[in-house]
Amino acid sequence: MPLIECVPNVSEGRRADVIAALGAAIAGPGIHMLDRSSDASHNRTVYTFAGEPDPLRDAVLRLFAAAVDAINLQIHDGVHPRIGAVDVVPFVPLRDATMDDCVALAKSTAALVAERLHVPAFLYEEAASNEERRSLSNLRRGGANGVALRMKQPAWRPDFGPDFPHPTAGATAIGARPILIAYNVNLASNRLGVAQRIARLIRESSGGLPHVKALGLQLDHSIVQVSMNLTNYKETSMTAVFDAIARDAAVDGVRVLESEIVGLVPADALPADPVRRLKLRAQDLDRVLERRLPPL
Amino acid sequence: MPLIECVPNVSEGRRADVIAALGAAIAGPGIHMLDRSSDASHNRTVYTFAGEPDPLRDAVLRLFAAAVDAINLQIHDGVHPRIGAVDVVPFVPLRDATMDDCVALAKSTAALVAERLHVPAFLYEEAASNEERRSLSNLRRGGANGVALRMKQPAWRPDFGPDFPHPTAGATAIGARPILIAYNVNLASNRLGVAQRIARLIRESSGGLPHVKALGLQLDHSIVQVSMNLTNYKETSMTAVFDAIARDAAVDGVRVLESEIVGLVPADALPADPVRRLKLRAQDLDRVLERRLPPL
Repeated sequence: MPLIECVPNVSEGRRADVIAALGAAIAGPGIHMLDRSSDASHNRTVYTFAGEPDPLRDAVLRLFAAAVDAINLQIHDGVHPRIGAVDVVPFVPLRDATMDDCVALAKSTAALVAERLHVPAFLYEEAASNEERRSLSNLRRGGANGVALRMKQPAWRPDFGPDFPHPTAGATAIGARPILIAYNVNLASNRLGVAQRIARLIRESSGGLPHVKALGLQLDHSIVQVSMNLTNYKETSMTAVFDAIARDAAVDGVRVLESEIVGLVPADALPADPVRRLKLRAQDLDRVLERRLPPL
Repeated sequence: MPLIECVPNVSEGRRADVIAALGAAIAGPGIHMLDRSSDASHNRTVYTFAGEPDPLRDAVLRLFAAAVDAINLQIHDGVHPRIGAVDVVPFVPLRDATMDDCVALAKSTAALVAERLHVPAFLYEEAASNEERRSLSNLRRGGANGVALRMKQPAWRPDFGPDFPHPTAGATAIGARPILIAYNVNLASNRLGVAQRIARLIRESSGGLPHVKALGLQLDHSIVQVSMNLTNYKETSMTAVFDAIARDAAVDGVRVLESEIVGLVPADALPADPVRRLKLRAQDLDRVLERRLPPL
């Protein structure tokens, strides 16, 4: 049977009781909990779990039911752009699963979320109903308010559900995509400009490395970060990205401090001895997807 | 909770064991079986049942699973145009249900049929994704072969599932529509032309009565039939239709023999004393929807 990963991003990263309750709602027969990561400043939690299609769909429906009760987007704050209480729900093919399996699961899940909870649902990436809706950033343009206004237009009607947001839970984007690696490289500098210049150099959209999205961030008074999504790690590896950043930083006389993984990575994405090769934080060595999956 | 009616048309009207097995697949908790009617010459069975959305969806999925096993459309014959083993699945709002409830249920059911059974599914009538797909006759144009060829074109891709038919079960149309009355008036004549002329006179598409579809059929050597669907019985009643047919038949010197109901009708669609007023067959007097529904 196909094993699929689900990585919902939920708009709550502060209230520990709510974060735990939503995790408990996801848990159930056939669900393998792999990871949970909350960010208070983004006010956002990412749950990572895997299973076969039917248990996964049920788990996502339980998550939506719990989130609709516990989260009120109207009084939500946080720096991350978001359109809903359960903001984004990607399905990712793991072993024995195809992208078509994930597309079908995204559609049936979105249809049921809209039907049972009256949350308008957009399909995105591989599950999108047209090219314009593939990109999450396109869908999310203008945040919750932009989406609420746009969904009255025929071209931006939700794929499922009403053409107005849920009063507390907003809207949601449900889709299918390949494995994505969230990878950050921290630089020993207090100059945000250095991280921003490097991000611009390496991201695909400004002519850098293929399948790389990158952003420069200020972490604290002595560290800046190049924060990335690697959308095809077989074409552009963590190592290739690390080397490009180290080289570009050296031009500014800046040293790479360490690198970090957010969520999980496939085993074959890591080089031998990643602590030495990528200056990977030692605590991230166990963030390997296969080690947390159920045995075959 | 909303009560919804489901009236699937299945491409099997001869093998009693298969007809019974498909009925048994539908039966389950929360399902109220209302009617079953098989037609051997059309090789077709219509099941009528009601329930709340979740039990109904499960029942339809069980029906599809059973039909995929028991029916092979490749070796099917019968005069009715059909595109699949489970050919058409309409959802109809009854008490406390809205058309939106039925549209949402049609979409989630179609998504799951495609995902679990790999049967391509088209949404029709109120659930249709565009105007061209609303009409069942438009969707079914060219029968199973026409649909199989057409579904490779972007404009006629199924709403859910693969762009090729299931090897044994073909494709399916799942939709939402208001209550429809299947009503036939039998004429004491052996002249098919009379029934055909009357059908043309009364059907909406050739300028007759609104919300009436009609066809002239030869039943046997002494009876012809005007076979109808009344798609809005509050606007065009059974009585109005009966009177128009009786009047038109008299022009040809032909007498109305009797009228008959196929399936069920709402109580308020029948006049007082329908046996006298509509020459309704006495055995059809119990074909009243409300009498078979579960009590409130």
